[in-house]
Amino acid sequence: MQNNHYCVIMAGGIGSRFWPRSRTNKPKQFLDITGTGETLLQQTFNRFKLIVPPENIFIVTNEVYRDLVLEQLKISFEQVILEPERKNTAPCIAYANKIIERRCPDAVIIVSPSDHLITKEHDFVSAIQRGMIFAQQNDALLTLGIAPTRPETGYGYIQASEAISPDKTGQIKKVKTFTEKPNLEMAKIFLESGNFYWNSGIFIWSLSSINAAFESYLPEVFIPFTFLSEPKGINYDSMAIRKAYSECPSISIDYGLMEKAQNVFVIKSAFGWSDLGTWNALYEQSSHDINRNFIRGENAFVYDSKNSIIQMPNDVVLIADGLDEMIVVFSDNGLLICKRNDEQRIKDFLEIVKSKKTSIL
Amino acid sequence: MQNNHYCVIMAGGIGSRFWPRSRTNKPKQFLDITGTGETLLQQTFNRFKLIVPPENIFIVTNEVYRDLVLEQLKISFEQVILEPERKNTAPCIAYANKIIERRCPDAVIIVSPSDHLITKEHDFVSAIQRGMIFAQQNDALLTLGIAPTRPETGYGYIQASEAISPDKTGQIKKVKTFTEKPNLEMAKIFLESGNFYWNSGIFIWSLSSINAAFESYLPEVFIPFTFLSEPKGINYDSMAIRKAYSECPSISIDYGLMEKAQNVFVIKSAFGWSDLGTWNALYEQSSHDINRNFIRGENAFVYDSKNSIIQMPNDVVLIADGLDEMIVVFSDNGLLICKRNDEQRIKDFLEIVKSKKTSIL
Repeated sequence: MQNNHYCVIMAGGIGSRFWPRSRTNKPKQFLDITGTGETLLQQTFNRFKLIVPPENIFIVTNEVYRDLVLEQLKISFEQVILEPERKNTAPCIAYANKIIERRCPDAVIIVSPSDHLITKEHDFVSAIQRGMIFAQQNDALLTLGIAPTRPETGYGYIQASEAISPDKTGQIKKVKTFTEKPNLEMAKIFLESGNFYWNSGIFIWSLSSINAAFESYLPEVFIPFTFLSEPKGINYDSMAIRKAYSECPSISIDYGLMEKAQNVFVIKSAFGWSDLGTWNALYEQSSHDINRNFIRGENAFVYDSKNSIIQMPNDVVLIADGLDEMIVVFSDNGLLICKRNDEQRIKDFLEIVKSKKTSIL
Repeated sequence: MQNNHYCVIMAGGIGSRFWPRSRTNKPKQFLDITGTGETLLQQTFNRFKLIVPPENIFIVTNEVYRDLVLEQLKISFEQVILEPERKNTAPCIAYANKIIERRCPDAVIIVSPSDHLITKEHDFVSAIQRGMIFAQQNDALLTLGIAPTRPETGYGYIQASEAISPDKTGQIKKVKTFTEKPNLEMAKIFLESGNFYWNSGIFIWSLSSINAAFESYLPEVFIPFTFLSEPKGINYDSMAIRKAYSECPSISIDYGLMEKAQNVFVIKSAFGWSDLGTWNALYEQSSHDINRNFIRGENAFVYDSKNSIIQMPNDVVLIADGLDEMIVVFSDNGLLICKRNDEQRIKDFLEIVKSKKTSIL
């Protein structure tokens, strides 16, 4: 564990696809969605504590989630980087880079989402450590690619080059292309080819490499935060951050930078990863009863039902009959009843509802 | 409105087929299940106020519902007849008869359930008044039959004799048989025949006629309550009532008496009646949206769904998608999700749940 190793956990998402468990005032990363006793943020933080010094782990989140972060993690308030508004991942990373730069100009940084599931911790730690060595030694933007286990249409894919690996282990490859979520036919081709990996959204790079890439490809995101490079004595205030955010476009690091840079690499990994982006993703990761139902809730009584996802609080009595391929979730006076096939529409439904009644969600 | 006209409203049911709206501590008759602003008991009481003096209306209910009755109706506590246990309709009627006998030995009595829906009040009042005149003048046990409008398999039927009506209007006929709930094929034959009526469970008789019938056909129910005929000065206490109930068999007035007596008549009626016995019965009586959904709840948002019954409290946000022929009801931390075709099983499901967890329903 080296002192110049840093980690940035992005925890500003609002997780609307996990409604009604995930709510605007308590999104998915702050929930014990897997039922293990730890929230996803806590799981993520504890995993990175195995790799970098805990005081080098920063959480970037929206101002409104500050107290939730400090409740869930034993960290100093200086480790919580507060965003005044949501502007996707590129501004979030540019901002965190500047904070880290003030402490350690030769940092090697892992950037990670806060709300994913990882089941094989040992393999995860190995992959990250290998990546950090590579990023330390090379001017490289490294992304973690997950060897696909099914023709998933809900993920973006990374295509690795067939050229020889610059890494002795052969696990690190140059990236050829990033692709959007494919249709099923294409996903099957990706799965068979062996050269395509799920894009985990986890990145590793040295501060100098990522700064250089920002300067080349996203100066409009980089420049608003340059005032933070001024000598340490000069304080920045929340108004200055607010101004920087207002000047930034809302853009993802994938689209704005990774797809354009020429020094992008992928580590092939297989550490039991899921983005837990949807109820179906949770279903796939979970154990089922004999009828392939995933049922949570001490007082959930389910009859003649199959292939369904049911999550009830213990103090709600559910009697359900005749469910097939359905999602039924009750939480905090919100009830979702939705076909599993339609779950991509939950986000749209929520938008419609929000446009009618903003106060109730 | 005559002083010897009395009414007995039976309000002791527990309405388990309307779970989760109807609960053991607040059954269906005490709920505004139609959304009109009045509970079914209030609707029933107010309807009979048009026919008999309000002080002559008695409510028979279980001891545990006494306060609910007195909250909902402006009546004296002496008008609430309390049963110590549930023993079906015959003991309930025998007990109420004795209470009325002490005040008015020549009473003519209407007996009615408390939890049915009646939409045509004017026709209802006409039918009851005609029946009371007939019961006053004849030694007759009169039942109200509803002209069927569909081949309903959830109701019992009354077959009227084809003999000439003893009543000048031709609306009152001798009863030939009572039948149990038919299958669909039989129900269609009943509907076509024109001689079969739905058994509404509403009865009209003079005290002398019903007492005579009890003595002949149900002495085991009649005798335990005879102590109540003793001179007015002698008080009865709740222990005596408890003893009488413990001695009575649990038996319905239909099975124990009406099916056996020879002087049973039916008034043919059509006053928009439903026993509201089930969610489907409520659905049939209600207006629907363009997709034939019955939706209640200010924050119930339902997409791509049809032929379904949805009842949510206003403070629960529902997002539902892909429902077809389903019942979805949330009330007081109970959630029912059930195929409409399976609703007869709700009662069974509840029994199973109760056997596991008695405290939660």
